[in-house]
Amino acid sequence: MGDPAGISPEIAAKLVASRDIHAGAQLVLFGDHRIFTEGARVAGVTADVDVISHGESIPDDSIRPIFVDLRNLSLEQVTPATATLAGGLFATENFRQALLLADAGRADAVFFTPFNKKAMRLAYDGYDDEIRFVRDVLKTSGAASEFNVLGNLWNARVTSHIPLSQVASAISETAILRALTLADRCMRAAGFARPRIAVAGLNPHAGDGGNFGREEIDVIEPAVQQAIAQGLAAEGPFPSDTVFLRAKNGYFDAVLTMYHDQGQIAMKLMGFDRGVTLIGGFPFPICTPAHGTAYEIAGRGIANLGASREALSLAIRMGAEVRAKRAAEGKAA
Amino acid sequence: MGDPAGISPEIAAKLVASRDIHAGAQLVLFGDHRIFTEGARVAGVTADVDVISHGESIPDDSIRPIFVDLRNLSLEQVTPATATLAGGLFATENFRQALLLADAGRADAVFFTPFNKKAMRLAYDGYDDEIRFVRDVLKTSGAASEFNVLGNLWNARVTSHIPLSQVASAISETAILRALTLADRCMRAAGFARPRIAVAGLNPHAGDGGNFGREEIDVIEPAVQQAIAQGLAAEGPFPSDTVFLRAKNGYFDAVLTMYHDQGQIAMKLMGFDRGVTLIGGFPFPICTPAHGTAYEIAGRGIANLGASREALSLAIRMGAEVRAKRAAEGKAA
Repeated sequence: MGDPAGISPEIAAKLVASRDIHAGAQLVLFGDHRIFTEGARVAGVTADVDVISHGESIPDDSIRPIFVDLRNLSLEQVTPATATLAGGLFATENFRQALLLADAGRADAVFFTPFNKKAMRLAYDGYDDEIRFVRDVLKTSGAASEFNVLGNLWNARVTSHIPLSQVASAISETAILRALTLADRCMRAAGFARPRIAVAGLNPHAGDGGNFGREEIDVIEPAVQQAIAQGLAAEGPFPSDTVFLRAKNGYFDAVLTMYHDQGQIAMKLMGFDRGVTLIGGFPFPICTPAHGTAYEIAGRGIANLGASREALSLAIRMGAEVRAKRAAEGKAA
Repeated sequence: MGDPAGISPEIAAKLVASRDIHAGAQLVLFGDHRIFTEGARVAGVTADVDVISHGESIPDDSIRPIFVDLRNLSLEQVTPATATLAGGLFATENFRQALLLADAGRADAVFFTPFNKKAMRLAYDGYDDEIRFVRDVLKTSGAASEFNVLGNLWNARVTSHIPLSQVASAISETAILRALTLADRCMRAAGFARPRIAVAGLNPHAGDGGNFGREEIDVIEPAVQQAIAQGLAAEGPFPSDTVFLRAKNGYFDAVLTMYHDQGQIAMKLMGFDRGVTLIGGFPFPICTPAHGTAYEIAGRGIANLGASREALSLAIRMGAEVRAKRAAEGKAA
């Protein structure tokens, strides 16, 4: 369960109630059952779960979703439509418990309903983004990246939450190749046999042959060539103002962008209500809807489930791959 | 007439043949009548014009479009689907003649079918973009800017054809205020009583309160406040990955972006086939379809007229304002 002040509780309840989405998967929810129940009331759904206490062992044979009641937030502590320390502590603790369960090999994927970044920062000093937090919890430092997924179209990026003024200097052959390799690996784990990845340029008109910047010639093109030499179906660099049109028309499975908004502008325009964010690179997938906590419609029961449905489905699909891989390695839960 | 090697001749002929588009306006075309006739053949249309020679006075009472035959390109000199010096010389000369006619007060607006930038550069050393060329021809150095127009939604930008690495340092209060003022003026000339202009941030999440860059706080927000103090309906800065969604939903008439692709990614996704480019800031509007020469479909007669239709209509609408203004100032043709 994510931030309690917006639509997260409502979404959690709606997902549990939509059994078709998680048929074949065993859901384990972390949060406070009082908040969850209130979410179900707001959503107007019946969301049956088996409630267990924190520390109690999680049954393997439950036919209903399991709710691990951390008893970490009462209804009185929720300030609707407001980012609070209490809300941040609730969401970070739920997230942490889910991550630890997956890290222990007892869950195959993690999904969360939207967080509020301000609340997360109040609760966890240095909460830059989810990747930083996951690294802290899992005590790891390997390559990880946020992917945006819209139907069958993926968007990966070389840089993310940094000032635009620092983007050009953060682009290197190594960084691009690392992003391409990670995207290829995550997409294979999601079922693409050989993902076709278009690489966006950095400058207007992809530099126009060096007239508006040389990064395409000096950095991006060599990185793409290296990726191709390593067997990846990479292509580019393409001008970023038309590469998404090509991808949308089916020429590519993914676009690797050089910076945050280059991809986000396109992905949000193409499907704000359906977008999924995937954090890839860790031993298990972490998925969430791309939209936020939607404080402006909190408590009204009108939250659109589209993106959460897609995100949970992707987590389940990729989780099955993780499970199969762990089984093959003899580490199955 | 623009570049002869792509779809430009075909588009010119189709526009002339579509009398509904230019009813009420007197078209004056510059080019070579042989190329135009070939364009009509490719398009499969009858495009009646009154042909006059260069230097001959342009009649005021023609009921058909007037074609000023510069005799500057034979069919044999056209290399289909190729950017050539001959093509560049043709297009630059046609453009120059049209600009001079408008500058002399004998035309109220300029429209051109697509240019090929490489060919333009072969023909005119230092052809960075259209604005530079127009300034050279008109011997002026005032504020001018390229606008992208899609239906009733405009996109203006603070910086354009420069490397992304230089964008952050090119953003200043003065530059933003100048862009806002120019956008407001051009949009009023196009019929907006009080254009509502959203201003995009520079950094991801518009800097997220200074976490990912401070330009929003230090530069953009103060510029927006200055614009508001001057009576403009400006608002922002907004995160650039959602500002176009708001604009698309009717909350704004225009988005001012900080750099080229920030706007172009969105505008091309929203309507690649309908986009119009307007060069504003000169004494008369200059319009063209946003797409290029489409060499890949040259000679096939299948060019989509949508964007050209929109561009010519905008030129005619704005030209009428220019005409009225000139008449009021006693400078009418």
